[in-house]
Amino acid sequence: MSGPRRSVDIMARVAVMQGPAATGSVEQNLAAIEAAARESAAAGARLLVTPEMSATGYNIGDLTGERAESLDGPIVRAIIELSQRYSLTVVAGLPEREQGRLYDIAVVVAPSGLVIARHRKVHLFAELDRDRFAPGDRLVTQFECADRTFGLAVCYDVEFPELVRAHADSGTDILVVPTGLMQPYTVVSRILVPARAYENQLFIVYANRCGSENGLEYCGDSVIVGPDGADLARAGAEEELLIADLDAAALADGRRRNTHLADRRPDLYPAKPFGRRD
Amino acid sequence: MSGPRRSVDIMARVAVMQGPAATGSVEQNLAAIEAAARESAAAGARLLVTPEMSATGYNIGDLTGERAESLDGPIVRAIIELSQRYSLTVVAGLPEREQGRLYDIAVVVAPSGLVIARHRKVHLFAELDRDRFAPGDRLVTQFECADRTFGLAVCYDVEFPELVRAHADSGTDILVVPTGLMQPYTVVSRILVPARAYENQLFIVYANRCGSENGLEYCGDSVIVGPDGADLARAGAEEELLIADLDAAALADGRRRNTHLADRRPDLYPAKPFGRRD
Repeated sequence: MSGPRRSVDIMARVAVMQGPAATGSVEQNLAAIEAAARESAAAGARLLVTPEMSATGYNIGDLTGERAESLDGPIVRAIIELSQRYSLTVVAGLPEREQGRLYDIAVVVAPSGLVIARHRKVHLFAELDRDRFAPGDRLVTQFECADRTFGLAVCYDVEFPELVRAHADSGTDILVVPTGLMQPYTVVSRILVPARAYENQLFIVYANRCGSENGLEYCGDSVIVGPDGADLARAGAEEELLIADLDAAALADGRRRNTHLADRRPDLYPAKPFGRRD
Repeated sequence: MSGPRRSVDIMARVAVMQGPAATGSVEQNLAAIEAAARESAAAGARLLVTPEMSATGYNIGDLTGERAESLDGPIVRAIIELSQRYSLTVVAGLPEREQGRLYDIAVVVAPSGLVIARHRKVHLFAELDRDRFAPGDRLVTQFECADRTFGLAVCYDVEFPELVRAHADSGTDILVVPTGLMQPYTVVSRILVPARAYENQLFIVYANRCGSENGLEYCGDSVIVGPDGADLARAGAEEELLIADLDAAALADGRRRNTHLADRRPDLYPAKPFGRRD
């Protein structure tokens, strides 16, 4: 009954920084990201994913505007510097200011020093987001790393099957999700994220904050999930660095076994998505 | 910190028959459904959900055609009789024959004696289905019971977020899913079904087969899930009858707290769903 063992083909070792556990100054947050970058590089990771607004704090009220920057500001310059220093692709979060608007963004910086992707959160969460941010207007943001296609989503974005389907259809192999998931929403990390990975046959790297921040209790529970919906690594409630190897053979094997994408019935699905129920 | 307790408003007590554990004759299967109906009625249930092809067996090869019937055949007449006898709405599965084609269907029979709904599986699973069945051509099938709107899906259908989204947009409060989930797919019952309930804010009643049938090992693991993604009742691996009360207050509460449907960005979603990747 035991066939030949499936071969293993590591396409990327990735790291997730869970933290920081407090708002801190921008300098403190950048120091925490640098410490995670140093540790990730020492562990042989190619990519480090940090949480939503990892450089500034997330539930920071009026500080959001004070700490917001453009893509050529000092925060992104600092991320570029540490990406180059540790030869590591780094995903970091901050509030972006452009033409008088604020966006909740994730940026991806390559060891070349280039900002290779920027995703503006497209699904805003409650007044917490709507009172501060304008929504992004591009659904699918992708970048290349280790010869694979990565995608970006920010927090609430991943809860929408429509967004992750669009990634799968656009060829995303690994979806990277900086997040700020708070209590009582552990169901998102435990149930929704594994479901998205399985139903779309891709890896998901979900990097959460932890600790408390101005009345929010973050869940921790950061997770790296395989295309079979099973955890490759999962964090507890405290600051932690997760490391996992993403196996190309597992991706190919999953896509051969689970054919949901090909088995859809687009002939029957509503030709236009339903609008808001305002 | 402890506010007033949320009120409870039972809208329907539902029952799930997990089984039968063998193919059996049609007479044996109808006897098993009748036993479940008797027990469900005694427990005060309004609705009994039985698995995929509960009246005939599912992985039955050439027997599929031999046991297939039209909606006015003896199987549906037997379901009508027991529905009337126990004043119970009954969901049963069988192969339907119409104009030379076979469909994998679930029928809903009300205590009035009327067949109030029939859903033909629209997402066919692998050669196991494709070699026998034609796919249904209606995505959303609904029926009324206990003054609530129920929806129908068969097995693999529920794995597609597009189908359950269409139910949510059509007003389905409780999605009923006769299924024949086999190993190694427990991820569907444990992860996908709870995700569908949570992301669409509805109850799901997922009634599975158990035991083994011509080389398939069914998972059991039938489940009734609430709109918060949490189990109301979950079966083990053996024959079992699940009972749960569906609470209208939990539905209203969940829809107030979780606003995914309103928070979608249909302006950004692909105007036409992607086609097959053949």
